[in-house]
Amino acid sequence: MKLKFGMVGGGGGFIGDVHRHAAQMDDLAILVAGCFSRDMDKSRAFAEKWNVTDLSRIYPDYQTMAAAEAARTDGIDFVTIATPNDTHYPIAKCFLEHGIHIMCDKPLALDTAQGRELAQLAKEKDLLFGVTYTYTGYAMIRQAREMIDAGEIGRITCIQGEYPQEWLAVSLVSGSSEQATWRQDPARSGASGCCADIGTHVECLIAQMTGLHPKRVIARFDSIPSDIPLETNAQIMVEFDGGVPGMIWTSQIATGHETELNVRIFGEKGSIEWSHLRPWALRVTRVNQPPQTYTNNRDYLYPAAKALCRLPSGHIEGFYEAFGNLYRGFCTNLIAKKTGGDPGTFRYPTVEDGVRGIAFVEACLQSNANHNVWVNVDAR
Amino acid sequence: MKLKFGMVGGGGGFIGDVHRHAAQMDDLAILVAGCFSRDMDKSRAFAEKWNVTDLSRIYPDYQTMAAAEAARTDGIDFVTIATPNDTHYPIAKCFLEHGIHIMCDKPLALDTAQGRELAQLAKEKDLLFGVTYTYTGYAMIRQAREMIDAGEIGRITCIQGEYPQEWLAVSLVSGSSEQATWRQDPARSGASGCCADIGTHVECLIAQMTGLHPKRVIARFDSIPSDIPLETNAQIMVEFDGGVPGMIWTSQIATGHETELNVRIFGEKGSIEWSHLRPWALRVTRVNQPPQTYTNNRDYLYPAAKALCRLPSGHIEGFYEAFGNLYRGFCTNLIAKKTGGDPGTFRYPTVEDGVRGIAFVEACLQSNANHNVWVNVDAR
Amino acid sequence: MKLKFGMVGGGGGFIGDVHRHAAQMDDLAILVAGCFSRDMDKSRAFAEKWNVTDLSRIYPDYQTMAAAEAARTDGIDFVTIATPNDTHYPIAKCFLEHGIHIMCDKPLALDTAQGRELAQLAKEKDLLFGVTYTYTGYAMIRQAREMIDAGEIGRITCIQGEYPQEWLAVSLVSGSSEQATWRQDPARSGASGCCADIGTHVECLIAQMTGLHPKRVIARFDSIPSDIPLETNAQIMVEFDGGVPGMIWTSQIATGHETELNVRIFGEKGSIEWSHLRPWALRVTRVNQPPQTYTNNRDYLYPAAKALCRLPSGHIEGFYEAFGNLYRGFCTNLIAKKTGGDPGTFRYPTVEDGVRGIAFVEACLQSNANHNVWVNVDAR
Amino acid sequence: MKLKFGMVGGGGGFIGDVHRHAAQMDDLAILVAGCFSRDMDKSRAFAEKWNVTDLSRIYPDYQTMAAAEAARTDGIDFVTIATPNDTHYPIAKCFLEHGIHIMCDKPLALDTAQGRELAQLAKEKDLLFGVTYTYTGYAMIRQAREMIDAGEIGRITCIQGEYPQEWLAVSLVSGSSEQATWRQDPARSGASGCCADIGTHVECLIAQMTGLHPKRVIARFDSIPSDIPLETNAQIMVEFDGGVPGMIWTSQIATGHETELNVRIFGEKGSIEWSHLRPWALRVTRVNQPPQTYTNNRDYLYPAAKALCRLPSGHIEGFYEAFGNLYRGFCTNLIAKKTGGDPGTFRYPTVEDGVRGIAFVEACLQSNANHNVWVNVDAR
Repeated sequence: MKLKFGMVGGGGGFIGDVHRHAAQMDDLAILVAGCFSRDMDKSRAFAEKWNVTDLSRIYPDYQTMAAAEAARTDGIDFVTIATPNDTHYPIAKCFLEHGIHIMCDKPLALDTAQGRELAQLAKEKDLLFGVTYTYTGYAMIRQAREMIDAGEIGRITCIQGEYPQEWLAVSLVSGSSEQATWRQDPARSGASGCCADIGTHVECLIAQMTGLHPKRVIARFDSIPSDIPLETNAQIMVEFDGGVPGMIWTSQIATGHETELNVRIFGEKGSIEWSHLRPWALRVTRVNQPPQTYTNNRDYLYPAAKALCRLPSGHIEGFYEAFGNLYRGFCTNLIAKKTGGDPGTFRYPTVEDGVRGIAFVEACLQSNANHNVWVNVDAR
Repeated sequence: MKLKFGMVGGGGGFIGDVHRHAAQMDDLAILVAGCFSRDMDKSRAFAEKWNVTDLSRIYPDYQTMAAAEAARTDGIDFVTIATPNDTHYPIAKCFLEHGIHIMCDKPLALDTAQGRELAQLAKEKDLLFGVTYTYTGYAMIRQAREMIDAGEIGRITCIQGEYPQEWLAVSLVSGSSEQATWRQDPARSGASGCCADIGTHVECLIAQMTGLHPKRVIARFDSIPSDIPLETNAQIMVEFDGGVPGMIWTSQIATGHETELNVRIFGEKGSIEWSHLRPWALRVTRVNQPPQTYTNNRDYLYPAAKALCRLPSGHIEGFYEAFGNLYRGFCTNLIAKKTGGDPGTFRYPTVEDGVRGIAFVEACLQSNANHNVWVNVDAR
Repeated sequence: MKLKFGMVGGGGGFIGDVHRHAAQMDDLAILVAGCFSRDMDKSRAFAEKWNVTDLSRIYPDYQTMAAAEAARTDGIDFVTIATPNDTHYPIAKCFLEHGIHIMCDKPLALDTAQGRELAQLAKEKDLLFGVTYTYTGYAMIRQAREMIDAGEIGRITCIQGEYPQEWLAVSLVSGSSEQATWRQDPARSGASGCCADIGTHVECLIAQMTGLHPKRVIARFDSIPSDIPLETNAQIMVEFDGGVPGMIWTSQIATGHETELNVRIFGEKGSIEWSHLRPWALRVTRVNQPPQTYTNNRDYLYPAAKALCRLPSGHIEGFYEAFGNLYRGFCTNLIAKKTGGDPGTFRYPTVEDGVRGIAFVEACLQSNANHNVWVNVDAR
Repeated sequence: MKLKFGMVGGGGGFIGDVHRHAAQMDDLAILVAGCFSRDMDKSRAFAEKWNVTDLSRIYPDYQTMAAAEAARTDGIDFVTIATPNDTHYPIAKCFLEHGIHIMCDKPLALDTAQGRELAQLAKEKDLLFGVTYTYTGYAMIRQAREMIDAGEIGRITCIQGEYPQEWLAVSLVSGSSEQATWRQDPARSGASGCCADIGTHVECLIAQMTGLHPKRVIARFDSIPSDIPLETNAQIMVEFDGGVPGMIWTSQIATGHETELNVRIFGEKGSIEWSHLRPWALRVTRVNQPPQTYTNNRDYLYPAAKALCRLPSGHIEGFYEAFGNLYRGFCTNLIAKKTGGDPGTFRYPTVEDGVRGIAFVEACLQSNANHNVWVNVDAR
């Protein structure tokens, strides 16, 4: 079966196109409805561009869309939410109330109260709710998890994560500050800048790789340059489940680093390291042995990791394809739910992961505001 | 305008899906017809999967498809040929004769006679004819060309290219010899193995980066292991236009190298180096200066290179997206041709490039058969 | 002039040989006396091996050596102290009291009280006192400092340092725990393990590169595995002079990392990054420009950095040569002091740097013991 | 026992110091005599600098030195020849005739006739004769050989070597053409430039790693820029013993590459790759397995390779130390010869390797002069 889906937002930047390609990549879903922009003409132009042929399914607002699609016998199976951060919560709530499954950009919401309400609603309504933490879609992330679950590196002893970016420094110099504007606006982005925007990617990636979540944090936020409203540099000491020590650094002013998400996981028997600079590779070292480099789509991978690869090894799958793997996880689970079939091995981050992300940021904000003391992450 | 296209083949491997995604990636074309398999049931299944809704445009053979589509007022604008190598020539010829533009997998044909006939036919009929040398679609390849054309590295003095792969060694060990079977069958692949399959990628990539073509070659082919029919390792000394010296090595038994196409170009004022291990990067060195690493989608790139990037810098675009850039070049040129508009800066390798590739292989075969003497590349 | 020097210790491990080669590398000094071991026979054997011809200058203990050499008209100009950590203080004190200049292994002493006493004594006696923080001897560290002092990366905004090692994990697995034994013995190593042993290298390297020192720290120490006496993993949040935020991570159980000291320095106009994996290279990025890789002995380096290189660029100078540069700094300054000549541009870490290192560790210990609160580094 | 040695030359550049440090590094030899320069004052100044105390053993010319040292009962055990290339032959001949063992810079001589005469003479006189092909001294080169001899990568199928440098391009731009002058003077360097200077390093390194020697070659030499006398770029197709195909590229105008000697060896069961960019590492890949990175001084190395390491793994040993390993091989063998003891596992390239290098260059010159036909390497 092929799922039908709609999209809210996505007409304003590159991410709408990413969602569309990703959702349709493995022919598990087709875009049939949407409210791509507040401007109906623009929305219809996107419909034409994106092969949505029935223009009656292009809506002026998300409320109308949710109601109309819920009322159709051939209504959408799920909706993709690709709007600015501050609108995720009301839109998601609306579609949940109409019984429609959800794939939503991160952050899930602006605070944990909103997030938990959505999680609770999804549970009550028995609806799937995915959150698109892109990097978790890389095959090697799954390989890491399979290896760790199988005990290949033993008990985890230390975790180092980081996500330096340089775009804000570049924006300030080049004057192309469009992104800077909204990402640095507390009203639209929430109370945290860098930590919410990319620190949560590190937190979620570590969780997907290890199964471990932050239990408490010490965080220091800096606004660099100092006249910028939200933090652009965040340094976080983390204690993960089981008392495992870790550090996370994220920055938007780290000149020389474009999108450099790196995670290093150490265990009693070995280590596993992943870098977004070469996302198809995993550096694996057993104690007292030479480091090895595992790569995409090789026979020696765990089947659940190999299944995430579409191309022969050495042929690069990137951002779109990692995003596609999130949709593959969401869609195969949704189809299994609808058909009673086997959901298989594909996964996706859920609304619970979304809540954890917000709780992590809230604990960091609180620690930063209180002279960098330990603050528990309230991830109910 | 959005072009309509059909596909012949593509139902048997991963490459059909690559073509479909690549052609539709930038919303310049939509798949509406096809003969995806010789088995009509399979073909129809692919139609459904690939959102081709009018099943009357699924055809039992390419001849029927060419005739029928040419007869329709809303017939396809171009056809994609994604069949085994030995069938490219008759299929392309048939569609050209019906006045349909063409995007064809490499190699264009099995010998230069066939290739030249197709080139001549395309010229007579005034039809566009692209050949999908994937790697030429990476933005950094265009950046290299723009820099070289602007004289940034001065007159070219030396070119080193290589494309080691290991898949055949892996196949032999793991017993998964499906690809090995047809790629090592002279009847289906032609008289050359490794050189035709991947050596031509190096040759074409160098030509796209520099504008220089092989003038003559000394080639040595080895079948490793020795009981294999076609060469799996090819070492080639090349003299490019203007007497520029170069070397090309390609191998399918180079354990430790998955798909490692590397080109290094030296000039009197500097050098430019590209590796498929990090295709979004270009290593640029001016004489007596520190090496620099240029990357995708940065402001300092030439506009024609930057235009090939879809994602913020640091977000990885890979094989699908490079392939998409070939279609972007082909489609924008075709649309410009049809509308009389500006074709813009996007490019694609043409039937002439395809002929050059075959001529290169033929010269190598001849050199190898004649004790490795110099043989001119006949690239009329 | 060529300086005469003696050595205390050095007969028990590889470091004695390192000192000897390093001190003599540039023909500024010659070894003429020593107490290489507590066993006179061993000590004399080393004398023979190391070309010390006058065996009357081989001494049974350091006190005798200090007194005897001080009494000679041709006595040693300086002494190298290459003994276990817990003996540095009394030995250094003894030689200072006899008016002999000193090069001492790090750590300078076991606590700041001892360290300050030595610093004070050196000052009173007007004696040079170097501490061999090896990594600071690499030419690229000096290049970084020159660039930063010249304002090339603007005001510093963030500093990330780390020094993961794996040797302790390897020792535990392989059973070769000799080093583990003494490095994990509080009586011989002091109250801190990993932080004192290698964290101080990071602290000192950052200071040499930037001129900035830790003002306060939050530190978390972990003993991994848990039955080991001293910490083997240290995570430190640092506030440097001027409020610059930073993080330091050091570990001895970081499987896959042999000796991987990395420092990344970010400024308002660019960044400078150095890794011990390629110590002859410096990664330099100006905001909105491609990263560059500066390397040893190139004309574009600052003269003070280029002067530290002995071999043509591309020829690797490693640990011995970096160590040699410390002695080059110490000896040229000592010769200048003795001759009234120009000391030139070579530098070396001093007793003050040694005190700072101990103060840093003490602050970390205190923070770790107090629930990871901020503790000021008392670096008078 | 500690050997006594003298040096001819070495006062004019950095290489004299390299020899001295390397020969004395492991305390197997001590410099006691020399003719460091044709100017006796300069020679005596070097003696003082280099701790040669008996100035009566500083000689005005090599003939006098050979005669005098041969006549002494405590005369030198061996002589190091570190003079310009065109003088190696007469000097070596003279010392051999006086019964003195030899360590000589490469190239051994200017033609094979000279080289063979030296080899013959050494044999007749039963004298050790080493040639300092530096790169062969790296521990990982020995590890490669041990692995290959043990059959770890199976029968060798293909060898790729290269040695690009950029110094000549830099010299021409920066005007610092001192080296360029003599290296481009046929009277002093011989008939070949780049191939003799660095191509022989590749040839010898491959031989040391694999035991295979070039059987025949096709070579193309280019002088870039064209007004330079000797070739600065050499491209060579090689057939090694047993018909193994290979390619070698060397260049002195390869902008962006300082001293980048790389060798990749492929076998039926795996591959071994070494790069001078990280000489302490070896990339090892078994067919169908992830690549591994072996490093210096680890327990998993072969004992003969591990024995070549002096520092804990991760601490960089570079050019001096590799050079030191050649002397370690030469000296341990010479001591064993003198004492009748066990020579142990250390090795060094010999006069026969030196002859092979010249024969290789001569074959390349002949191929280049004859339209790039195959020419046998006459390595009797």
